[in-house]
Amino acid sequence: MTKKAFQDYYPDDVAHCYGCGHLNPHGLQIKSFWDGDETVAVYTPREYHTAIPGYVYGGLVASLIDCHATGTAAAAAYRAAGRAMDTEPAFRFVTASLKVDFLKPTPIDGPLEIRGVIKELKGRKVIVAITLSAKGVVCAKGDVVTVEMPESMIK
Amino acid sequence: MTKKAFQDYYPDDVAHCYGCGHLNPHGLQIKSFWDGDETVAVYTPREYHTAIPGYVYGGLVASLIDCHATGTAAAAAYRAAGRAMDTEPAFRFVTASLKVDFLKPTPIDGPLEIRGVIKELKGRKVIVAITLSAKGVVCAKGDVVTVEMPESMIK
Repeated sequence: MTKKAFQDYYPDDVAHCYGCGHLNPHGLQIKSFWDGDETVAVYTPREYHTAIPGYVYGGLVASLIDCHATGTAAAAAYRAAGRAMDTEPAFRFVTASLKVDFLKPTPIDGPLEIRGVIKELKGRKVIVAITLSAKGVVCAKGDVVTVEMPESMIK
Repeated sequence: MTKKAFQDYYPDDVAHCYGCGHLNPHGLQIKSFWDGDETVAVYTPREYHTAIPGYVYGGLVASLIDCHATGTAAAAAYRAAGRAMDTEPAFRFVTASLKVDFLKPTPIDGPLEIRGVIKELKGRKVIVAITLSAKGVVCAKGDVVTVEMPESMIK
């Protein structure tokens, strides 16, 4: 049996995100998992995700950091509540602010590892620190402030 | 004659960016222009660029802000140098850091206007402040620190 990713637990009505929704066939469909107290996702860029030839464009780096962080926030909220991820009501987070530092060019020819650490979990807010690495080298760092999605956003 | 966008002046060897390269057929191909001392780009999201249904996913917002900022930086560098954008050597900027504040959900059903203001231009660094609006309402703000691309990045 394949282990389910955080995003596989998103209810269908909030599972269309281009970055992480399992119901968006055009999207990146990233998959995030626990690794001890950290979270991890691995994504292999497509050849057209280029910036300067040979490197990943910054928007993809930002997208991976963003969506891995909101997934991490949901998982952290379940864990803090002592609840399994398949229990209702579902936790689903959106991004309030995203900061990405591009430390070095990210090579496009191989998988990227995105790791998350929960810095703060308080009320409806979860702050996640992210690193994005290629071939064992950290190429970008992210700080993401996420908030639980307002009910009013669901149409 | 159609007015050329900043990105149309990028030399072919650095015109493959997914966000703004005119040579990337899969990409967003954003087009940025001067509007007085500000810069402006308009981009209409595709239906699959969704976050929660009805809204644009954050990674696209970050990508548009990022690429409009690097385009703005290049245009600002030419203007500061008193040079036309079709003169050599070309200015081409990459992002050192990107901060996006998501002020409200960005509706997906119409064009987005991305506007840039040059906050600082000093040596090889240009800092650009961005707003991203839908239907006249600012939905996200960005602060982007860009640096002139190192020669070593071109393969």
